[in-house]
Amino acid sequence: MRILGIDCGTVATGYGLIETGGRGARLIEAGTIRPSPRDPMEKRLREIGCALRLVIERARPDHAAIEGIFHAANARSAFKLAQVRGVALFVLAESGVPVGEYSPLEVKSSVVGFGRAEKEQVQWMLPSLLGYSGPLDSADAADAVAVAYCHSVHLPAGAAQ
Amino acid sequence: MRILGIDCGTVATGYGLIETGGRGARLIEAGTIRPSPRDPMEKRLREIGCALRLVIERARPDHAAIEGIFHAANARSAFKLAQVRGVALFVLAESGVPVGEYSPLEVKSSVVGFGRAEKEQVQWMLPSLLGYSGPLDSADAADAVAVAYCHSVHLPAGAAQ
Repeated sequence: MRILGIDCGTVATGYGLIETGGRGARLIEAGTIRPSPRDPMEKRLREIGCALRLVIERARPDHAAIEGIFHAANARSAFKLAQVRGVALFVLAESGVPVGEYSPLEVKSSVVGFGRAEKEQVQWMLPSLLGYSGPLDSADAADAVAVAYCHSVHLPAGAAQ
Repeated sequence: MRILGIDCGTVATGYGLIETGGRGARLIEAGTIRPSPRDPMEKRLREIGCALRLVIERARPDHAAIEGIFHAANARSAFKLAQVRGVALFVLAESGVPVGEYSPLEVKSSVVGFGRAEKEQVQWMLPSLLGYSGPLDSADAADAVAVAYCHSVHLPAGAAQ
């Protein structure tokens, strides 16, 4: 089963595709969408949405996973983030990919074993869990891979392959 | 020139199309998109986005207008609203329709003449400004028409027709 994780942001939106199966989960690809910071918001949203749509068409995930918005540094940045999240959910729904939502605590707990883990511990654990070496494209891509991994842990074993 | 106003909401998203020209502005159409409240958020966003896309294809607006998110009853409803707003901006950007953003104060000021006006005063003024009678489909549709009217007032006279 192929799971696409998405980490939303107006500056950088990370994505990570993992595949689960016989010998556990492994990373297929990960990347970062960085819209031009000089563009107005609607153009940045278009760039993020169209890039995600291309990833979905290429990667053909069976499931997607995304972090719920439970915390935010401030209201203004939370609004911006929520706009990107709306676009991601819209593009996934248009592609017919079911989406799972997880809190940061659930993501950390699934990767490191406890929910109060540091972000760095999550990034440090991912390569051994998913059979890759070296750092990913960005912290956003790593966060996306982490939420995809979280989804693979939470999905029932018999979920649609 | 045809201007599409959009009033975003997860329960009801209003839209209103006005046409400006020789004899002032007039209402062409207005309506309300109400996604099924039992659907998960991604399906509601898909329904809103696809419905807005159909409106844009049919109405062929030269410009669009939308309220900025400056206030919100609470953080949770603001996040939901921002997700819908992201979808609306995405669909508009994909259709190549330029978007103007206005605060509630600017909208009220353009319709009633002062920014601290009540919502009811705005709805009461719109028919005489835009040459129609009778109430619109919903308060959300009226809010959408109001932001479209606000945009018509703020656009430079020589803006692309």
